[in-house]
Amino acid sequence: MKKTEVAIIGAGVAGISAAIYLKRSNRDCLLLDKGAPGGKLLNIHQIDNYAGFGPISGMELAGKLFEHASSFGVNYEYGNVLSILRQEDGSFLLTTDMDQIEAKSVIVATGTQNKLSGLPGEKEFNGRGVSYCATCDGNFFKGKDAAVIGYKDQAVQEAIYLAGLVNHLYFVHEKEIEAAESHMDTLKSFSNVSFHQATPLAIKGEKLVSGLLVKENGEEKEYPLSGVFPLFGERSSSEFLANTGVSLDRGFLICNENMETDVPGLYGAGDCVKKKLRQVVTAASDGAIAATSAVSYIHSLRKKEN
Amino acid sequence: MKKTEVAIIGAGVAGISAAIYLKRSNRDCLLLDKGAPGGKLLNIHQIDNYAGFGPISGMELAGKLFEHASSFGVNYEYGNVLSILRQEDGSFLLTTDMDQIEAKSVIVATGTQNKLSGLPGEKEFNGRGVSYCATCDGNFFKGKDAAVIGYKDQAVQEAIYLAGLVNHLYFVHEKEIEAAESHMDTLKSFSNVSFHQATPLAIKGEKLVSGLLVKENGEEKEYPLSGVFPLFGERSSSEFLANTGVSLDRGFLICNENMETDVPGLYGAGDCVKKKLRQVVTAASDGAIAATSAVSYIHSLRKKEN
Repeated sequence: MKKTEVAIIGAGVAGISAAIYLKRSNRDCLLLDKGAPGGKLLNIHQIDNYAGFGPISGMELAGKLFEHASSFGVNYEYGNVLSILRQEDGSFLLTTDMDQIEAKSVIVATGTQNKLSGLPGEKEFNGRGVSYCATCDGNFFKGKDAAVIGYKDQAVQEAIYLAGLVNHLYFVHEKEIEAAESHMDTLKSFSNVSFHQATPLAIKGEKLVSGLLVKENGEEKEYPLSGVFPLFGERSSSEFLANTGVSLDRGFLICNENMETDVPGLYGAGDCVKKKLRQVVTAASDGAIAATSAVSYIHSLRKKEN
Repeated sequence: MKKTEVAIIGAGVAGISAAIYLKRSNRDCLLLDKGAPGGKLLNIHQIDNYAGFGPISGMELAGKLFEHASSFGVNYEYGNVLSILRQEDGSFLLTTDMDQIEAKSVIVATGTQNKLSGLPGEKEFNGRGVSYCATCDGNFFKGKDAAVIGYKDQAVQEAIYLAGLVNHLYFVHEKEIEAAESHMDTLKSFSNVSFHQATPLAIKGEKLVSGLLVKENGEEKEYPLSGVFPLFGERSSSEFLANTGVSLDRGFLICNENMETDVPGLYGAGDCVKKKLRQVVTAASDGAIAATSAVSYIHSLRKKEN
C-alpha cells in the first residue's frame, strides 16, 4: 500500500499540468498511467495551436511536458486503475493492477478514445490524412479536398469548421443526418460542400491519403481528396469510477468551473470531462485548475486533523 | 475605417492564443493593444508553470507567443479602444484613439491591473521579492520567510497557499480581517503563520527584498524576509464596454464555459473574465475557447447573409 496526497490518474497533458501545479504548491502527488507519459499526444503528428510552441510533434511536446514535470520531482508510475473507493474518513483507496494507493484527493485525467469508423486504411493513415479533430487539424487541409464521415450533430459542426478552410468538402453519411436544423442550414450555405448518402468502403492512399472509396447509388466510386475525418465522437472509459458515485454523462465527468465533481476531493481534468472543446491548451488549463482546487481541499482538511 | 471579422482587444496571452485559433480557422482578425504584445507577461520575471516550457522569463515567453501568432499572419496594431457600439445589424463598431474598426465579433482580453499597496519599495522590487500571485510565485519562496499584506478573503486564501510553502509567513493587516471563517480556521491551523495588526511602512532590500518595515503596537520594526505579497486584488478596466450593455461584475466580464457574454458575438478571455484562477495557461485556454466560439458565431451569420 502506497500513500500520496493527490493521485493523478492519466499522464497526458492534463495530468502532467496538474502535477506541475501540485509540486509547485509543495503537495505530494503520484502520476499514474497505464501507458507512457503523454497520453493522446503520442499519436499526434503535429500540433500547431498550443500557444508559444509553434509547430511541434506530439511526441516532442509529450517529452517536454514530462521533462518539465520531472524537473519538479513528479513521481510517475505505471498503473492501470481498476477501481476507486471513497473510504469513511473521506480518503480514496485506488486499486491498480499493480498495487493499492491511498490518497487524500484524486484527479481523473484519463482522456478519451476516438470512436473509429473501422474502415480499411483508417489506422494506417492516422495522422497522415486521417484525423478526428477539425479544430486541431483542419488547417493542414486548407485549400485541399477532404471528407467528413458521420451523421450526428458533432460531425455537422466540425464539417462547418472545415468548410471554411478546405477547397471541397464531401459530407458522407450512411444514415440519415441527425443534427440541429440551424447547423444544417449553416453547412448547406457553403457552396463547397456536397452531401452524399453513401457507404464508405475504404480510405485509399500511398504515403498519404489520396481518396475515399464509397458505394453511392449502388456504384463504387472514389473521391479524390487529402483528408478524411471519421467523426463518430469520443468515448471516455469510466468504469473504474463506478464505486465513487460521481456524476457522469455518457462516461464523461461532470465538473464545475473549478473542475470539482460532486464528490468532495475528486476532480476531473482534460478530455475526460464533459465539455465542448478538447485541445492541448484546454487540458493543460484544466489540470492547473484541478490541482489548485485539490490544494485548497487538502488545506481545508487540516482543520479536521488538528 | 477598417474592417475585420474578429477584433481582439488585448495582445496578452489570451488575445494571442485567440488569434492563433482564429487564423488557423481561416478567419480574419485584428489584434489590438495599447502596449507591446505580451501584456502582463512583460513584467513577469520568471514563469515556471506553463506546461511544457520549464522556467522561462515573461519577456521570452511573450516573444515566443507573438512569433507563433505572427507565423500565421496575425495582424497586430497599436490602438487604445475607447468605446464599442453594437450596431443595428449586430456588428460592432470600435473607436480607438487612432481609428474606427468594424468587426463581426469582438474578443475582450484586456487583462487586469494589480491594486498596489503604494508602499515605498513596492515598484522597485516587483519581481525581485514583491509578487501579487501566490500560485504563480509562491514556490520561489519555498523554505524562506514571506509576508502577505491584506485583509480580505482573497488575501487569506493566498496566505493559506503560501503557508504550505514558506518557512514563516507574516500576515500583516492594517484593517480587521474580512474573510470566510473556514478560511481563517485553515490559516490559523498553520503553526508557521503569525498575524500582525500593523501598518506597513516600506519594503526594504538591496537587489532583492530583505525586509518589511511596519508600525506595530506603536513601534517601528522590520520583519526579515524574502517575499512580500501585497494582496489587495485586481482591477479590470471596462469603461469602454459601457455602450455594449454587457454584464459585468466589478469590471470583470461574466462569461459562460464557452467564453460567451450575454451580448451575441462578444466574448471574454483571460484575466479580465470573472473567475477564480488567473494563470498563463488558463488565459491561453480561454483564448482558444473564445476564438472557437467566435468562429461558430461567424459561420452562423452566413445563413442571414445568404
